Amino acid sequence: MDVEAVLQKVLPRIRPTDEERAFVEGLMRKLKGIAEETIESLGLDVKPYFVGSLAKDTYLAGDHDVDLFLAFPLDTPLKELRERGLELGRGIAERLGSYEIAYAEHPYVRARYKGVKVDIVPCYDVESWRDVKTAVDRSILHNRWVIENLNGKNDEVRLLKRFLKGINAYGSEIYIRGFSGYLAEILVIKYGSFLEVLKNADFMLRQKVIDPGNWLKREHEIAMRTVRREAEADRPLIVIDPVDPRRNVAANLSWERYGVFYFRAHQFLENPAEEFFFGGAKKSGSYLSELRRKGTHLVTLMFQKPELVDDVLLPQLERTARGFEKALTREGFRVLGWKVGYSKEKAFIMIETDRIERERVLIKQGPEFFTERGWDFYRKNEKIWLVGKRLYAEKKVSSFILDVLSELVEKNQVASGKGVRDFIKRAEALLDYVPKDLEEFAYLFLSREDGNLKG
Amino acid sequence: MDVEAVLQKVLPRIRPTDEERAFVEGLMRKLKGIAEETIESLGLDVKPYFVGSLAKDTYLAGDHDVDLFLAFPLDTPLKELRERGLELGRGIAERLGSYEIAYAEHPYVRARYKGVKVDIVPCYDVESWRDVKTAVDRSILHNRWVIENLNGKNDEVRLLKRFLKGINAYGSEIYIRGFSGYLAEILVIKYGSFLEVLKNADFMLRQKVIDPGNWLKREHEIAMRTVRREAEADRPLIVIDPVDPRRNVAANLSWERYGVFYFRAHQFLENPAEEFFFGGAKKSGSYLSELRRKGTHLVTLMFQKPELVDDVLLPQLERTARGFEKALTREGFRVLGWKVGYSKEKAFIMIETDRIERERVLIKQGPEFFTERGWDFYRKNEKIWLVGKRLYAEKKVSSFILDVLSELVEKNQVASGKGVRDFIKRAEALLDYVPKDLEEFAYLFLSREDGNLKG
Repeated sequence: MDVEAVLQKVLPRIRPTDEERAFVEGLMRKLKGIAEETIESLGLDVKPYFVGSLAKDTYLAGDHDVDLFLAFPLDTPLKELRERGLELGRGIAERLGSYEIAYAEHPYVRARYKGVKVDIVPCYDVESWRDVKTAVDRSILHNRWVIENLNGKNDEVRLLKRFLKGINAYGSEIYIRGFSGYLAEILVIKYGSFLEVLKNADFMLRQKVIDPGNWLKREHEIAMRTVRREAEADRPLIVIDPVDPRRNVAANLSWERYGVFYFRAHQFLENPAEEFFFGGAKKSGSYLSELRRKGTHLVTLMFQKPELVDDVLLPQLERTARGFEKALTREGFRVLGWKVGYSKEKAFIMIETDRIERERVLIKQGPEFFTERGWDFYRKNEKIWLVGKRLYAEKKVSSFILDVLSELVEKNQVASGKGVRDFIKRAEALLDYVPKDLEEFAYLFLSREDGNLKG
Repeated sequence: MDVEAVLQKVLPRIRPTDEERAFVEGLMRKLKGIAEETIESLGLDVKPYFVGSLAKDTYLAGDHDVDLFLAFPLDTPLKELRERGLELGRGIAERLGSYEIAYAEHPYVRARYKGVKVDIVPCYDVESWRDVKTAVDRSILHNRWVIENLNGKNDEVRLLKRFLKGINAYGSEIYIRGFSGYLAEILVIKYGSFLEVLKNADFMLRQKVIDPGNWLKREHEIAMRTVRREAEADRPLIVIDPVDPRRNVAANLSWERYGVFYFRAHQFLENPAEEFFFGGAKKSGSYLSELRRKGTHLVTLMFQKPELVDDVLLPQLERTARGFEKALTREGFRVLGWKVGYSKEKAFIMIETDRIERERVLIKQGPEFFTERGWDFYRKNEKIWLVGKRLYAEKKVSSFILDVLSELVEKNQVASGKGVRDFIKRAEALLDYVPKDLEEFAYLFLSREDGNLKG
């Protein structure tokens, strides 16, 4: 099938229907009315804005999350904005139905209305990047810039977003590190269409800096500082935010996610197919057969899930997994890979190792023999010999991997995420076995099918 | 027991008795007579000299090797020296008994006379280092210098030599890399006695340069060049040869052998005992128990012994062992140590490893994904994933160590000594088992008792 034919089959599946569009518009109208009434009843000088993909009309069919921003005047003290903002949010939410308080830089209200998630977020009513005071303020500017520049390319954005979702490269959350919706919009605006973005996957990596706001001319110093800082941090892309020269829109994009996009774009252009947009049939298989095929072993540490949000929990689990990798490597096991995850109750770290028993005697390298430390080493060790100028000695150690692991944890010799440390101490260690509900996860990990660029 | 008492018990065991002395002197007299007669009968202008420990009266009781040097005039062409020297050597040897031709820089005759080994070596009759033309010429100068400077300390030299033998640090041969007899003599002359040499084990290492011939004054440039060259090569000691400022007498002394001397000297001064001079009872035990205790494995490669002299064979076996260590490490086995050796018929390399089976799948690190080589890697591999910017892929490999070894050898992926290479290809590989006559060797290796500084 040629590319156009594929896109023509995809579009109807991701573009909202007229009914859906009418529903969304009605929803926003009503929300706006409720917001304005509540603002007035509280006697506040606040403007309600819709931001996000609904407001920009770049949302995917069926994806109706609403972002309602409540913009306070710039001269409102931060403390007042927090308190009044939350009060106002509650006031609105109470008229919508159930709600809860969520926490980002400051607290906001997360409500549900007609089956749709509505985030009600207080912010400052900024006109330019120079006014920006809190992390969310920029959203209003983003919204405005996209609407002004999108030029009817809304469906192209939908294609790109759906493609990125299909290849598992969408979302700028720290545990995904993929493309944000705003980044997808900028790329479509910059390159003109979904296909052009794909065709430029290699070029944009080489060009490295994308500056749709023309900041390198308008605010050379500030923009250059951003470029230098982000180049130093070795980001795959530096997309200077068209509404703020201090910010790289792609700051959270990882090399892995860019790489996935890079190869999938290439594959799609060679062999276009609908599956790219919706994910192929998930590979499945037996993790036990994978262990047999590879001749490796799987250690799974399971423990009570700490009460942390995803943005915090996953990086901490990853840090801990890296800590185990380093510690096990130091102890003579080879770690072929690891992967973390969690369910409602439990968090877990899976580690693939080359074996489950090591030698019972390790060889310690000591200092040069003619030094003070050399004499110390000489005195402290029973059996001791020389290789070149260095002293060596034997050290008796536990052999079985689970013994080694529990010693490492007991002696605090595993660098681990702060919020996870105490839970790790009470972790259960499983060897070459996982509970039923982790079998698929284990298979995808061991087979590397989850990251397989050709899978 | 105090130090003096120990030395008084050792001395009678290592000092030649009057009878022995008479025998040796008679022997040398007769040899000299035979040599002079043969020289005359051949009409040659050659002077016979005795060199070595017999001539210097620093030989140990029972150690009667004779070095008879035949010194040709300096203007003799090298070719003539070789031919005439060999002819003369044969002439003398025929009057002594059985003999054979041995090879060093030039051929010489090795005879037996009254149960004593007699090396008959042609050389130039040099008066100074400036005359030296072949490697052996210096011996006459060494002999003269020691006799002139020893000052009755002959028994001190005997103590030091016997001590170095007892702790296994004697001999400058390339496969020992210990102290030569000449070096022992210089140290006694320099520090005044056996005990003073031991007491200075640390000091001489720090002082580094020993210059008994005062060359740094007499021939500053040349001596400094020697010091710089040898310092560059990181020798433990730089002993400028009192008869030749271009030469470090300790050039062949290794850090290991110096280290053994260093610790044994310390131990002897703390707890003097006769055993230091004669070697303790050899440790013995079961190599199989060692393997069990350590949880390690022993691979022994046995092959026909190449026809090479020790000085060549052992370094080549060691190079080959290092080659196996590198190759096995690259393949994912840990090598805890190795040791080489040979008997009359067979040479062997023993390698201690952490395990005998590795995983059946290795993970290959590839290039960065956005490069030409990245695309090659992408095309060539079935399953492929990203970690950071790098591509990774799986590679199926043999798991069993003997399979891995034979593949390595077949594919010429083991750096090995030139004279050994072809033999290695036909090597037999033994796993966790050695023939009866290697059991002790295997035990000493696996237990590290052969190098144990506290053993």
